[in-house]
Amino acid sequence: MTATESTYRGRARIAEPGEGIGLDELALATRNHGMPLEALRYDVTPPGLHYVLVHYDIPATEAATWELEITGAVERPLRLSLADLTARPSVTSRVLLECAGNGRARYEPRPVSQPWLLEAVGTAEWTGTPLAPLLEEAGVSPRAVDVVFTGADHGVERGVEQDYARGLPLAEAMRPETLLVHAMNGAPLPPQHGAPLRLVVPGWYGMAQVKWLRRIEVLDRPFDGFQNATAYRLKADADDGGVPVTRIRPRALLAPPGWPDFMTRERFVHAGPVPLTGRAWSGRAPLTSVEVSTDGGATWAAAELAPADPAHPFAWRAWRFEWTARPGSAELVVRAADAEGGQPVEQEWNRQGMANNLVQRVPVTVLP
Amino acid sequence: MTATESTYRGRARIAEPGEGIGLDELALATRNHGMPLEALRYDVTPPGLHYVLVHYDIPATEAATWELEITGAVERPLRLSLADLTARPSVTSRVLLECAGNGRARYEPRPVSQPWLLEAVGTAEWTGTPLAPLLEEAGVSPRAVDVVFTGADHGVERGVEQDYARGLPLAEAMRPETLLVHAMNGAPLPPQHGAPLRLVVPGWYGMAQVKWLRRIEVLDRPFDGFQNATAYRLKADADDGGVPVTRIRPRALLAPPGWPDFMTRERFVHAGPVPLTGRAWSGRAPLTSVEVSTDGGATWAAAELAPADPAHPFAWRAWRFEWTARPGSAELVVRAADAEGGQPVEQEWNRQGMANNLVQRVPVTVLP
Repeated sequence: MTATESTYRGRARIAEPGEGIGLDELALATRNHGMPLEALRYDVTPPGLHYVLVHYDIPATEAATWELEITGAVERPLRLSLADLTARPSVTSRVLLECAGNGRARYEPRPVSQPWLLEAVGTAEWTGTPLAPLLEEAGVSPRAVDVVFTGADHGVERGVEQDYARGLPLAEAMRPETLLVHAMNGAPLPPQHGAPLRLVVPGWYGMAQVKWLRRIEVLDRPFDGFQNATAYRLKADADDGGVPVTRIRPRALLAPPGWPDFMTRERFVHAGPVPLTGRAWSGRAPLTSVEVSTDGGATWAAAELAPADPAHPFAWRAWRFEWTARPGSAELVVRAADAEGGQPVEQEWNRQGMANNLVQRVPVTVLP
Repeated sequence: MTATESTYRGRARIAEPGEGIGLDELALATRNHGMPLEALRYDVTPPGLHYVLVHYDIPATEAATWELEITGAVERPLRLSLADLTARPSVTSRVLLECAGNGRARYEPRPVSQPWLLEAVGTAEWTGTPLAPLLEEAGVSPRAVDVVFTGADHGVERGVEQDYARGLPLAEAMRPETLLVHAMNGAPLPPQHGAPLRLVVPGWYGMAQVKWLRRIEVLDRPFDGFQNATAYRLKADADDGGVPVTRIRPRALLAPPGWPDFMTRERFVHAGPVPLTGRAWSGRAPLTSVEVSTDGGATWAAAELAPADPAHPFAWRAWRFEWTARPGSAELVVRAADAEGGQPVEQEWNRQGMANNLVQRVPVTVLP
């Protein structure tokens, strides 16, 4: 059964000014989780520290009986077991992923949804087989436009009952880097990361990285399903059709220095040399710089950005800045730029809180 | 340096009536995470789904150079490398862990701290060496009272700068089940679960399970450190010294049936037979029953509780109940009882939101 809006309630809502986080947002925050920012220290994020967003429930899946269907506007539909897929040529790729909703919880006003602060990121080693040769074997129609990836997770979103499904332009599906993935960091995919099979499309926000993948359908028209037509769009207001969320915008994050207060997560350091380190990335264009401000954005200085590693073109890059901390209060700010532009220092609001790459601000108390 | 309350702000606070979750509470919720309740399906929780609570930052640790010190009121202090510890007799134990703050976010009024709903649980296979023979080798003083376990995580809590440290009564430290653990589910400990070494004390709430363990000190007096004397206590009000939080109270949890709404996590099922499943546990006494109500607690019926497994005395136990769902609204409630009593159906408030085992309530819409 697919129920309609008359069966289900559900709508997008903007929080009132000053409205605290609700129990519904908290229920998402306690299920899903970000990457604690001290984990920026790891080149490859351990699976349990990598961010997780599950739209509905983590489905119960069985690797032994799993089947992937490739169908739609193809000459020869395919059904493949996991053994069929793991027997094919294998690629391991280090890929930064980020949720399109990262940063949403600090928006003013706040779109009510998964309330990410800044931690919805991670970089893993994904092992799988390239999708393009499979689509070529299936014989994609010359009229093909989009490829729809459907997962096994089932739920309701803003009144629409659905299996999670995302359309991807054919050209992106045919990129050699687009993988059907069965392993993460050298081990079988954990349940929350899509076991036994998921899609990885380097450079795109997380909504494209369909987990628990069981169906690939080639369409000769644009996909108009919920996650493309309604959810993941940059909209000014409720009546705006918006534009699709696609590739990851540039961002730099700082591993907060010193030690934290448990409750406020406020940071403390001692005066003197304090090395600042973190990671930066962009999914749309090569990074060109990372800059640091230690005075809340009044002045900026270049950080040392590690060179791009040809072995890992889709990973994040380390950066470093030597700060001489003087007693008192400081506000650290970092910003990355790529060939298309830099991170905004002032909020650029959109109705669903998507693709927000506002700079990170880290207040620090410097003790004598 | 250890700073004092004059350096640091910080206090325990109770939320005002109707006050939403603050950004400080949210910052904890997006770092730490619960176990999504559909993961009750796994006998052993995968590491990335097991709940995580980190008081301060996950410390950067090196297994190769790690040393554990056993000191204090002992005849022969010891220094042990990880290789020393892994060369000793090894035990693997399946143990349920639960955070003492589980359920705090639904308290009215709400203590402002890590805002758990119900998900701060998990069961893992912990591999390590029993602590008691090591303490015997060190020669514990006949005047010994408490054993203090100190981790490498450093921060500030309510004005007190500290390495996380917990005292445990000597008799608990000497239990044969108390382990110095280096592996979880057959793999080296992940960073967030205490790599390279942690304590596991079966039956106790999570605060006793010290992670990133580097020092064990035997005391001939009760430990009066922050985490024992101030933090983990059942207090009626701010002036109450309170009583220590120790063993896990009984609880049953239901894997919410059917499918969810993304935003509200509200559940939907179809009318007809709906098997209800979940887990139950107690750390203080043998479980005696699990009961289910499908009418919000007006009437109760016994669930089928799996027999205690002698191989896994500290694991959770599965339970099952066959529900015949009729169209309309239902509120599912589950409660466990052990030989010392059952879960409360009405809130039993304490100031820090500790050891709260109020029953879980799951509203369900039953579609025709």
